[in-house]
Amino acid sequence: MGKAKKSVKTAGKAAPAKPGKNPPKTKPALHAIKGGKSAPAKSPPTAQSKPLQSKLAMMKALTPKPVPAVADDVPVIALNLEPGKLSPAMTAYFKKCQDKLGFVPNVLLAYAFDNTKLETFVAFYNDLMLGDSGLSKLEREMIAVAVSSQNRCYYCLTAHGAAVRQYSGNPLLGEQIVMNYRAARVNRRQRAMLDFAVKLTASPGSVEEGDRERLRRAGFTDRDIWDISAVAGFFNMSNRVASATDMRPNAVYHGQAR
Amino acid sequence: MGKAKKSVKTAGKAAPAKPGKNPPKTKPALHAIKGGKSAPAKSPPTAQSKPLQSKLAMMKALTPKPVPAVADDVPVIALNLEPGKLSPAMTAYFKKCQDKLGFVPNVLLAYAFDNTKLETFVAFYNDLMLGDSGLSKLEREMIAVAVSSQNRCYYCLTAHGAAVRQYSGNPLLGEQIVMNYRAARVNRRQRAMLDFAVKLTASPGSVEEGDRERLRRAGFTDRDIWDISAVAGFFNMSNRVASATDMRPNAVYHGQAR
Amino acid sequence: MGKAKKSVKTAGKAAPAKPGKNPPKTKPALHAIKGGKSAPAKSPPTAQSKPLQSKLAMMKALTPKPVPAVADDVPVIALNLEPGKLSPAMTAYFKKCQDKLGFVPNVLLAYAFDNTKLETFVAFYNDLMLGDSGLSKLEREMIAVAVSSQNRCYYCLTAHGAAVRQYSGNPLLGEQIVMNYRAARVNRRQRAMLDFAVKLTASPGSVEEGDRERLRRAGFTDRDIWDISAVAGFFNMSNRVASATDMRPNAVYHGQAR
Amino acid sequence: MGKAKKSVKTAGKAAPAKPGKNPPKTKPALHAIKGGKSAPAKSPPTAQSKPLQSKLAMMKALTPKPVPAVADDVPVIALNLEPGKLSPAMTAYFKKCQDKLGFVPNVLLAYAFDNTKLETFVAFYNDLMLGDSGLSKLEREMIAVAVSSQNRCYYCLTAHGAAVRQYSGNPLLGEQIVMNYRAARVNRRQRAMLDFAVKLTASPGSVEEGDRERLRRAGFTDRDIWDISAVAGFFNMSNRVASATDMRPNAVYHGQAR
Amino acid sequence: MGKAKKSVKTAGKAAPAKPGKNPPKTKPALHAIKGGKSAPAKSPPTAQSKPLQSKLAMMKALTPKPVPAVADDVPVIALNLEPGKLSPAMTAYFKKCQDKLGFVPNVLLAYAFDNTKLETFVAFYNDLMLGDSGLSKLEREMIAVAVSSQNRCYYCLTAHGAAVRQYSGNPLLGEQIVMNYRAARVNRRQRAMLDFAVKLTASPGSVEEGDRERLRRAGFTDRDIWDISAVAGFFNMSNRVASATDMRPNAVYHGQAR
Amino acid sequence: MGKAKKSVKTAGKAAPAKPGKNPPKTKPALHAIKGGKSAPAKSPPTAQSKPLQSKLAMMKALTPKPVPAVADDVPVIALNLEPGKLSPAMTAYFKKCQDKLGFVPNVLLAYAFDNTKLETFVAFYNDLMLGDSGLSKLEREMIAVAVSSQNRCYYCLTAHGAAVRQYSGNPLLGEQIVMNYRAARVNRRQRAMLDFAVKLTASPGSVEEGDRERLRRAGFTDRDIWDISAVAGFFNMSNRVASATDMRPNAVYHGQAR
Repeated sequence: MGKAKKSVKTAGKAAPAKPGKNPPKTKPALHAIKGGKSAPAKSPPTAQSKPLQSKLAMMKALTPKPVPAVADDVPVIALNLEPGKLSPAMTAYFKKCQDKLGFVPNVLLAYAFDNTKLETFVAFYNDLMLGDSGLSKLEREMIAVAVSSQNRCYYCLTAHGAAVRQYSGNPLLGEQIVMNYRAARVNRRQRAMLDFAVKLTASPGSVEEGDRERLRRAGFTDRDIWDISAVAGFFNMSNRVASATDMRPNAVYHGQAR
Repeated sequence: MGKAKKSVKTAGKAAPAKPGKNPPKTKPALHAIKGGKSAPAKSPPTAQSKPLQSKLAMMKALTPKPVPAVADDVPVIALNLEPGKLSPAMTAYFKKCQDKLGFVPNVLLAYAFDNTKLETFVAFYNDLMLGDSGLSKLEREMIAVAVSSQNRCYYCLTAHGAAVRQYSGNPLLGEQIVMNYRAARVNRRQRAMLDFAVKLTASPGSVEEGDRERLRRAGFTDRDIWDISAVAGFFNMSNRVASATDMRPNAVYHGQAR
Repeated sequence: MGKAKKSVKTAGKAAPAKPGKNPPKTKPALHAIKGGKSAPAKSPPTAQSKPLQSKLAMMKALTPKPVPAVADDVPVIALNLEPGKLSPAMTAYFKKCQDKLGFVPNVLLAYAFDNTKLETFVAFYNDLMLGDSGLSKLEREMIAVAVSSQNRCYYCLTAHGAAVRQYSGNPLLGEQIVMNYRAARVNRRQRAMLDFAVKLTASPGSVEEGDRERLRRAGFTDRDIWDISAVAGFFNMSNRVASATDMRPNAVYHGQAR
Repeated sequence: MGKAKKSVKTAGKAAPAKPGKNPPKTKPALHAIKGGKSAPAKSPPTAQSKPLQSKLAMMKALTPKPVPAVADDVPVIALNLEPGKLSPAMTAYFKKCQDKLGFVPNVLLAYAFDNTKLETFVAFYNDLMLGDSGLSKLEREMIAVAVSSQNRCYYCLTAHGAAVRQYSGNPLLGEQIVMNYRAARVNRRQRAMLDFAVKLTASPGSVEEGDRERLRRAGFTDRDIWDISAVAGFFNMSNRVASATDMRPNAVYHGQAR
Repeated sequence: MGKAKKSVKTAGKAAPAKPGKNPPKTKPALHAIKGGKSAPAKSPPTAQSKPLQSKLAMMKALTPKPVPAVADDVPVIALNLEPGKLSPAMTAYFKKCQDKLGFVPNVLLAYAFDNTKLETFVAFYNDLMLGDSGLSKLEREMIAVAVSSQNRCYYCLTAHGAAVRQYSGNPLLGEQIVMNYRAARVNRRQRAMLDFAVKLTASPGSVEEGDRERLRRAGFTDRDIWDISAVAGFFNMSNRVASATDMRPNAVYHGQAR
Repeated sequence: MGKAKKSVKTAGKAAPAKPGKNPPKTKPALHAIKGGKSAPAKSPPTAQSKPLQSKLAMMKALTPKPVPAVADDVPVIALNLEPGKLSPAMTAYFKKCQDKLGFVPNVLLAYAFDNTKLETFVAFYNDLMLGDSGLSKLEREMIAVAVSSQNRCYYCLTAHGAAVRQYSGNPLLGEQIVMNYRAARVNRRQRAMLDFAVKLTASPGSVEEGDRERLRRAGFTDRDIWDISAVAGFFNMSNRVASATDMRPNAVYHGQAR
């Protein structure tokens, strides 16, 4: 494995696990970086974009402190993929992540072997988690974590558990949904939402009109039901891509918003 | 429910289930319509695009034969969503579907309540299922069906079961993967691929290095492993969106490539 | 493996998969051939019956068209069993199948290694599926398919999925129950029936009075409940014999009543 | 509920639970009564056979001792079915049970509402469990119990647990297979047999060639594999008929061969 | 394995399986021997206690009849653990078991490799199963058996199945809960209790306030709910220690209270 | 609910969730407080011990900082149990907890309604988790967390997740085992240990000699295997008592050793 490659794989973990506890409290990683959303539409991949490795090496250089001894010293994913060339839009998006969050979420580095896949993922993700919806961003993150707990996805529980802690300002809430969403003291509406998302995760083929009716009785519109389903569906995808590739979260998430 | 709305919901089923058995044999629905892929990049949503209902009404008008008595006379999804305004790119894409396939796949009509969601879905899907890959299009469809069988997703089994029949020219293969992929007489490589995809579907949290090693021993590269994971992951998402919304497949699929 | 044996194993698949689409539309395979039912009582096995291989060779000879390239080119079962001597009653029954259906269902060929087992199977089956009952023949086939879907039995889903399509005249209904019976638009009575049969399949030890009460409230008599249970039970047996022996359905079923 | 009916339902329990501990030690109930096997072939149902109620009343009269206080005072099944007319063959078979076993197994009383169903059940059962096979009768009963334990079937565990105790002369063996067949100290051949039967019960759709190969390596012929599958299949049927109808075993089984 | 060790492992089975049917009918093994409860408090382990092997050899000497041929000729557990030195309190407790029950329950012999573990186990157990509670001793044993059935624990089903038979004076009740507690004709209160215990066993993370409410409606106090939970919890522990070590029950249990 | 009672239920949460991040780094809660172990033996419950409520009120008074807004403002358990009288030994033990840890673990407060139950629990627990063993204390805590994750127990994951973080000095390790122990980079020995514990948790009835052999091959002695089984068993008990009673962890755990 060449030097450039290694920098790709470890850049995401460069942020310190412990001292880095106080980064962007009000800006949950990834999702709050909306720039990436419309970028793909405006800036299609171009051959002249600089290779990923130099971008990532640059990011690494920017990282203020080394990963402490307890950090998770492994590549971002367990697959040996050559870094692809990033489009200007994606390059800018990574830069924005670095500036605002202090790091580029590893899931983005994982997709960076292919600029088109990265762009479609970012566009899909940002619309889903940051776009207009009857669900708050916190609620969408709660679904992400409850689904990821059902699927026991280390990457997503770590990254989105941190997001729930940040958005809610309640560290316990994040922990509870990671461990067992039934232990969380959420309101009736949110409980119905999580029940639906977890049932849809555990036995999708058994979801029926009665389940949708329960959501409507809890106050959700049909559009909200779409969004609950779409977010739950998305993390059933992401959980599997992460598990299949042994994707490792940026160590910085662990200490965020505790 | 107004007239326009109704036309949205039933347009997709306008193609006959039985007599329509011989439509585009060589063009599996949706996936072969690559136009939609780059379209979003070029044509962002605009407010001036004509409302979906008129587009869909037009499509309905174009449909040659009425749905026979046995057709599945229900809306595309069980949610009451107002049709959104399609961007020119999406309008063109729907037109292309209608011209080449003879119908617009219902999953697209389902997403059409929101042009951004439709565009990101189409872009993501087309790259995944029609883009470059070490997996053939047939293999990607085989994964789609095996995953959908595990999740018992009526929509995806119908639409992608048809695609397997079409791409393979082997109706039995499509049926077998719908029913139990272990009954299909596939080669060792494809069997390893389906075993991985189904394990990833059934218990994502238990996938480990040994599972990836089995794929490598069966001849897959690390990039192939990404693609297997990404396709399996995608259908774990789509299965759940379809099940959550009771998405109904276009009746025409049932008779295709038998 | 001798020549005679081979003819045993492939005879059942001699009917064409595709062109044979229009065989006995109104006579679902096997079940409609009632002759076999009382035959065993009247004609006990006799040593003078001609060996199975010649019967089957004869059947093969009668088969009008060769299996197309897509056919499932494997033996009827994965066990190497010497064909047994058929009783005159069973010989006549096979002839009747051939005449009326155009083929002998592979399950009968599978049992034909032992005439007593064949006779008791046929007698049991015909009483259950064709005898008097408060359940229509279609309803019994619906149960067969829903149970076989739960157990993912390729043989039974193929053969009885065709029967549902034939009896109902609704190809979609057959597909839906194969894929996920909850997607089928059946009436309340039939839904209660299928719910009971699937619960009985998935967790027999948890069926209790409340489950029977639900059937009664849906309009079923106690005798009907016996029949639902007996049919569901029977396919839990057949699914396992078929899966344990890798029983392969006659290719002709795939194209029937589409 | 009339008097005749009641006698139908309770006759089977007339044998005492405790003092009746010493009935036919060498003749496991039902299975050892081979007369019923060929009877149906010789004696088709006739309208002139005396009504079931008088037969059963007679049996009751023959029962030596009343059921003790701890007996299971419930009807044979939870369905209210009118007793049917027994054919002379079945009448004789019941008499033979009464003479040899001291009671008529409740499963026969349960099927007695319809003589044809009773006859086909008896013929099927007797061939399977008492006919020629490479498996000993004890081995077939061991499969019956291991399958019934997986399915938690009270009726079959009781009746066939007693049969294992009787055939083996080892009360512990019967208990162990009822509780967890892995706790039984059986030989390698029998363990392979039970592993196959239980896997076939728990997840029939995942049985494949490797599983059959394991049986062959343990010394079983292909015909033996059929028999293992057929017995395991049969109890997957019987367990479900028994659970669906809340069939109650004759109290006498509990004390047999302890 | 030395001689002394062997005597440790087989002593527990010295009581005869069959002839020993009539031991302490009114004193269910272990639980009724309360002496052990306060013993630990009074008599801490001392180095001068005689080695376990001589104690157990003594017990063996006291055993009246040899194990019959059908006995389960295996060590108490599948782990090779040196017997520890018993404290005077535990020595006295074992003597008491021997005197009152005619044998020392194998679970105690299993723990006897370490006197502290034995004492804490005995103290915990005796308080739980014999101490004050709104649940009768029979009810606590019913929970033990229902939980052990869910977990398929051979040791606990055998030992506590015997206790249910003894406490209830109803052999059928013990068998039914071993096989499937839903088959037992218990009252509404007891059914609610067993439903809760089994749900808590099968999916502890899904137990919620609604489940506790059902117990309250069935007449249980909050203290009773603690006790139901504690007993169910305890057997989830014991089942696992027994299964992990292949703990074998004293053969005498099998014949008790039939 | 009286005042005294309320103080019982909320005392455990008096430690601050956030600022309290830096308490006893080297003393994992509860387990490191060995005093409780021998206490019960020396000091049996006495009537003259002061009522629990005053003890707990005292503890509350000692708590330095109020629970922040994000704390989990609920009673220790969802059962309404009158506090019992603590023995001097238990009173001293609680005092010791307060002095060394800064709080009394809520599980102890939960058991405090009955001094005998509290003492037997403490004695059992302390021997198991703090006594001599071939397993390190960290390894025992790792088992506790892996088992609790399988059972989705909020209380135990919180309290023992903190213990893993503290003992290991590796916050990531604690998180990983909470989320999916397969994501933790542990050595081969520890992985075998966790695999065994989780299998024993998920399907105890399927553990057999092969599983023990795997532990031996990983370097564990038979005594170690007992300890692994005992710890895994114990948390299968504790998880269920906690889930059944909705036991809530002290808020202070959440921030420990991050």
